Amino acid sequence: MASYQPNQSNLTSWVPVPPDHPFSIQNLPFGIFAPKPGDPRPGVAIGDHILDLAELNIWEGDSLNGLMARPPQVWSDLRARVSWLLNSENPELRDTSGRALHRAEDVELLLPAAIGDYVDFYSSLEHATNVGSMFRDPANPLLPNWRWLPIGYHGKSGTVSVSGTPVKRPKGQLTGDNQSAVYAPCRRLDIELETGFFLGSSGDIFGLVLLNDWSARDIQRWEYQPLGPFLAKSFLTSISPWVVTLDALTPFRVDGPEQQPAPLPHLQTAEPRNYDIHLEVWLQPASAPSATCIARTNFRHMYWSMRQQVQHLTSNGAPVRAGDLCGSGTISGPTRDSFGSLLELAWNGTKPITLDTGETRAFLEDGDTITLRGWCQGVGYRVGFGDVTGTVVPA
Amino acid sequence: MASYQPNQSNLTSWVPVPPDHPFSIQNLPFGIFAPKPGDPRPGVAIGDHILDLAELNIWEGDSLNGLMARPPQVWSDLRARVSWLLNSENPELRDTSGRALHRAEDVELLLPAAIGDYVDFYSSLEHATNVGSMFRDPANPLLPNWRWLPIGYHGKSGTVSVSGTPVKRPKGQLTGDNQSAVYAPCRRLDIELETGFFLGSSGDIFGLVLLNDWSARDIQRWEYQPLGPFLAKSFLTSISPWVVTLDALTPFRVDGPEQQPAPLPHLQTAEPRNYDIHLEVWLQPASAPSATCIARTNFRHMYWSMRQQVQHLTSNGAPVRAGDLCGSGTISGPTRDSFGSLLELAWNGTKPITLDTGETRAFLEDGDTITLRGWCQGVGYRVGFGDVTGTVVPA
Repeated sequence: MASYQPNQSNLTSWVPVPPDHPFSIQNLPFGIFAPKPGDPRPGVAIGDHILDLAELNIWEGDSLNGLMARPPQVWSDLRARVSWLLNSENPELRDTSGRALHRAEDVELLLPAAIGDYVDFYSSLEHATNVGSMFRDPANPLLPNWRWLPIGYHGKSGTVSVSGTPVKRPKGQLTGDNQSAVYAPCRRLDIELETGFFLGSSGDIFGLVLLNDWSARDIQRWEYQPLGPFLAKSFLTSISPWVVTLDALTPFRVDGPEQQPAPLPHLQTAEPRNYDIHLEVWLQPASAPSATCIARTNFRHMYWSMRQQVQHLTSNGAPVRAGDLCGSGTISGPTRDSFGSLLELAWNGTKPITLDTGETRAFLEDGDTITLRGWCQGVGYRVGFGDVTGTVVPA
Repeated sequence: MASYQPNQSNLTSWVPVPPDHPFSIQNLPFGIFAPKPGDPRPGVAIGDHILDLAELNIWEGDSLNGLMARPPQVWSDLRARVSWLLNSENPELRDTSGRALHRAEDVELLLPAAIGDYVDFYSSLEHATNVGSMFRDPANPLLPNWRWLPIGYHGKSGTVSVSGTPVKRPKGQLTGDNQSAVYAPCRRLDIELETGFFLGSSGDIFGLVLLNDWSARDIQRWEYQPLGPFLAKSFLTSISPWVVTLDALTPFRVDGPEQQPAPLPHLQTAEPRNYDIHLEVWLQPASAPSATCIARTNFRHMYWSMRQQVQHLTSNGAPVRAGDLCGSGTISGPTRDSFGSLLELAWNGTKPITLDTGETRAFLEDGDTITLRGWCQGVGYRVGFGDVTGTVVPA
């Protein structure tokens, strides 16, 4: 078996993969899919195809939790084995793939893991600064704790769903005067552009997905004090179906922003602590012929890294479970067109954005489809996430 | 089969049950236990014994999730069947119980369910008023939203543990000046006296446990803004092993406190909405010969009821799963000796309480054992929860 070399840009597969396709042989993301007909099983995406790990007797089960529970070396070894099976130079499967290779369009993609605990962080300095400027004090937008620890909270794991799940507009208590409320459909439905990462039982990071933390800003405004966001977030969280392993992202590591004050020793990590992942948000109204890209940003801007988030999460002594999911928090960049939420892009409704059709948006309308997209750009190949998408349907 | 009559105080079992024992035939709480040796299985507590539902081919599995997922009529029917099996008048099992009846001291009690999402509410008016008085404004302790909705937040389901689990003192970031922090063992370790209830997949309430929401007040102080409690609560939540069904509690329903303003229509429920459950907190230092009762209160004081909590929880359209667990929030009564946390009993450290030994406590010391206890008092019998206990061990 050839050893896996993550930085090898001349690695090619016998499965055709265009250079701008997210699922190159340098990527090999894991997921759970169901042939039609067929039981859920683990697979690896390669171009527009899926390698069936159950058919090959490589791995089984209807979730990736069992794999996530194994040591990271098992993850790497499994990935190396799949890489060699798909390598142009290896005839083993190339000429006889048969039932081991499915066309992606023929299968259903499912949630990759049974999620134990779901935690959402708040680790973009730009996002926290924007929100603090809007709702607290523009001259002093960050609370004193923000630079000392990666702020986070527990979310509802039961409504984390796979890309494509309809976004039913939530109902909830809305307030005008912050003294009384009515129960009505949310009027300020928003997105949050995030990445999410799955944990192994040891606290190691298995891999990443794109994550849309759908948010009802008006419900959030009334409910969130003093115990934090609750129903404003719990109606749905969408993730992309393919888990891009940390191994696949290793060639794209970059230094993060300077941290001032220096993190306490238990939160210190070596550089490069961040990853260079280009990210985009697309919005398409029901009536529009095509989507408009409303934001472009990069995961490299994040102030607190995934490793620091895990070190914080476990710093009180609490264990994690294989399949626990952590969201990065909204990923906003330094410029107006790089903000990861409509709240910021349209500055709390005061500066609606204009779509290619000429329509404007402050928040989401029924029928709007949001697509998050992201990839690392190699030389002649991409390590991408595919899309996470959702269409708003009426309450 | 005799029909089950919950209010029948003259109902007796052929298993001996003293009148002050929590597990009368009027109770019949469900749990998961493991004989030594033996696989985990469902059981029903009766006096100092446990009826083995797997041995009797009545119900199987290593959690109650499957039962919780069935309609409430199945729960009631199963309970009626067990009641008749244990009835003094029924010879079926009385003279030949054999392997179907275990002595409680011979088995290990386990977590009754695999918990999907864990939500903790904040539904005691007295507790919220006490906390608001201490940390905000004694003249105006409640935030405007408090009387409009049952405030809650998601907690960590992965550290909900069964009674007896050691309470390892958590570490975390502590602040002196609210501007900077150190990483050190928690110095203000506290309890929260709560009940918890398990949900069925339909949102019906399966049954209740006692719940101790161990809390690190100093960690909480620094971390909780703006997204709520996180690591201050996530190191451990302890629950009693026996789930007392809502059916068993039905005879003890009582009206709740008046709600002003009247709840919005989606949160309105019929009276009696509350339950008359006597609750106690006991503290025993490592060196003490016995425990001191440091608080006595009652579940009937709760402002928001369990049904209202569920209606709020699902009001945004989010589904629940069988095995989801909801905590009531700290249960405090109107008097100083009825508060459900040390934070309140010792008024934020300013008025330490005195134990029977003469020792004082503002917060928990290493070696302290906390026991929560609770029961409904019938005529000549109790419907009780048994204990939930934990001993603090050093960080």
